[in-house]
Amino acid sequence: MTAVQKSKVVGVIGGGQLARMMIAPALHLGLELRVLAEAEGSSAAIGTSMVGDYNQLDVVLEFAKAVDVITFDHEHVPLHVLHELEARGVSVQPPAKALAFAQNKLHMRVRLSELGLPMPAWAAIQTAEQLESFIAQNGGVAILKTPIGGYDGKGVRVVRSAADAADWLSPNILESVGGSLLAEAKVDFVRELAQLSARRPSGEFKSWPLVQTNQQNGVCAEVIAPAPNVDSTTLESAATIARKVADGLGVTGVLAVEMFEDADGRLLINELAMRPHNSGHFSIEGSVTSQFEQHLRAVSDLPLGSTEARAGVAVMVNLLGVDDLNDFVSRFGAAMKAYPEAKFHTYGKSARKGRKMGHVTVLGDNVDSTLEQARAAAAVLRD
Amino acid sequence: MTAVQKSKVVGVIGGGQLARMMIAPALHLGLELRVLAEAEGSSAAIGTSMVGDYNQLDVVLEFAKAVDVITFDHEHVPLHVLHELEARGVSVQPPAKALAFAQNKLHMRVRLSELGLPMPAWAAIQTAEQLESFIAQNGGVAILKTPIGGYDGKGVRVVRSAADAADWLSPNILESVGGSLLAEAKVDFVRELAQLSARRPSGEFKSWPLVQTNQQNGVCAEVIAPAPNVDSTTLESAATIARKVADGLGVTGVLAVEMFEDADGRLLINELAMRPHNSGHFSIEGSVTSQFEQHLRAVSDLPLGSTEARAGVAVMVNLLGVDDLNDFVSRFGAAMKAYPEAKFHTYGKSARKGRKMGHVTVLGDNVDSTLEQARAAAAVLRD
Repeated sequence: MTAVQKSKVVGVIGGGQLARMMIAPALHLGLELRVLAEAEGSSAAIGTSMVGDYNQLDVVLEFAKAVDVITFDHEHVPLHVLHELEARGVSVQPPAKALAFAQNKLHMRVRLSELGLPMPAWAAIQTAEQLESFIAQNGGVAILKTPIGGYDGKGVRVVRSAADAADWLSPNILESVGGSLLAEAKVDFVRELAQLSARRPSGEFKSWPLVQTNQQNGVCAEVIAPAPNVDSTTLESAATIARKVADGLGVTGVLAVEMFEDADGRLLINELAMRPHNSGHFSIEGSVTSQFEQHLRAVSDLPLGSTEARAGVAVMVNLLGVDDLNDFVSRFGAAMKAYPEAKFHTYGKSARKGRKMGHVTVLGDNVDSTLEQARAAAAVLRD
Repeated sequence: MTAVQKSKVVGVIGGGQLARMMIAPALHLGLELRVLAEAEGSSAAIGTSMVGDYNQLDVVLEFAKAVDVITFDHEHVPLHVLHELEARGVSVQPPAKALAFAQNKLHMRVRLSELGLPMPAWAAIQTAEQLESFIAQNGGVAILKTPIGGYDGKGVRVVRSAADAADWLSPNILESVGGSLLAEAKVDFVRELAQLSARRPSGEFKSWPLVQTNQQNGVCAEVIAPAPNVDSTTLESAATIARKVADGLGVTGVLAVEMFEDADGRLLINELAMRPHNSGHFSIEGSVTSQFEQHLRAVSDLPLGSTEARAGVAVMVNLLGVDDLNDFVSRFGAAMKAYPEAKFHTYGKSARKGRKMGHVTVLGDNVDSTLEQARAAAAVLRD
């Protein structure tokens, strides 16, 4: 007599905090979320339907059988696995052609250059001579990156001579990172910004207001949304860059474009993330549509929601692990008591120094006081 | 080397939409939620750790073993089961002594009268003579209720003579509803209001702004938060009533006090709900702390969050089932496209005429335009 509401099944590969934070909007939207997690007890355990290794084609094919669309908590699923999924007619969002750029920073630079997008000077490096020459042409210093395998400050090194990179220039290492290293000019930036956006397979695109990210040791520590003191030209320019990247690389779902702002107010593309991103966590409370809801809408090819702000300013502060044993949850009582307006988010992960364990978001009208509150609330948990 | 963050385990009896909507804040707060659902495939299936009959003491005792605190999706767990849990040292929130009032409207009226709280004239009715007398003293009409077992318009009847209630006055029915019926004067109200609040076992209390509820056929259809055109005396009076009810009945967790506002602006208590309530769904987006997060904080005896509004006005419109087959989810695309600022919520339930299938919330600055938007977005799904 009754019919259960039909719901689209979204399969998420990876059981990290990004998958965890997709669970709430999936419930609200009536989408069924199924997570392929690396291990039992992951951050997204409650949504996990299968545990297995995403590097194994048979595991991913088995997982894909029960879902309408495949998306991701991270960008590390091997391209040959993604290609095989697509060859069998599975909807993969973002598609393999886009993720190929996320998985290889050198290919990404080539493509962004073809699109005429602004970025630091860069070069593919295979020899010590090439690196010395790049360093000489770029003020005596370069940011050297392994094109594949790096994130959150890993696979990145500041070098002032080829000797600083002698180990990376060995044939074995070069081969393991794709044949070349990527050298980028060190930008004398005044701050780092991030432009969050989302795109549907059918092309609809929406961007959130540009945000400022404060990094510590190569890891995002704080986000201020919107970025303070940005003129309308810069706002428009950032949104245009995101749109060109999304269209030009064929990205679907949420895209984060991390950028440097230099002393002349120019924006230069630093990194891309083709998934919900730390710079967008503020949107859970700070935006009409959060990045997690928007990602689910986008990969399901549903109309995108409004990205309008819910408050004058939103500040997010990451909770990074201090040591193996530190336990935020037991300190929540004290933090909640002192900061009843703060929104606390845990990732349900085991502690480790520097690991992202959760975050705190505060909305307000004034940047300074909101930032102060968010930092203070986080400090109760951390210290 | 690593220690997984300790988290308190909250057990929820009942797998309806209220349990479903507790899942998101539980994840954010780092509380582990376990649901005892009536059946497989419930609204809260993703959080379900056990399926069984909450009327069976052994089922509930088994469920209680693995949790730190027991709370509820509904108020129907038999008192003897609750008493046995408490006797064994289980934290039951709200406690049996409070739920006893929720389970018996006559006991509730007695207690509210002892507390001197404002409410319609009422009487316990066991005979046709008593009912005739009550009707005669109250303008020729009475609202007759079964003290136990009624909700959403069930177990309620408007009567103008004892003959209208002849069946309910039979000894068998009387016995099954607790020995007496409850007669209440029919209030000539101008509108219905609801005061949402939360209280911790240790006594902390917070209330949200008073809301207006628009009912259709005895079911909440729309909520406007805050209630328009309410003076500060009424706001204060409503919050004071809620506090007295919570303290006086020993309620913990979220409490909704449904009230009539009469032509003289007086507030009269209609019904109580000792759990998150339909009148508080607006708070998911409309408040700094949603009723679902607050309920989890309160029953875990964690400090309560701010109940401040996120916008000038929030409007919630229920999605009620039209027939056995109507399928909101397939119409979400059209609704999302037309109303990118609307927040859609599904309960994952099978369709049935009049059943609460989901709701839509819109925030705004202006009551009329926000109400219009929310209604229009709901209409796309419904019609």
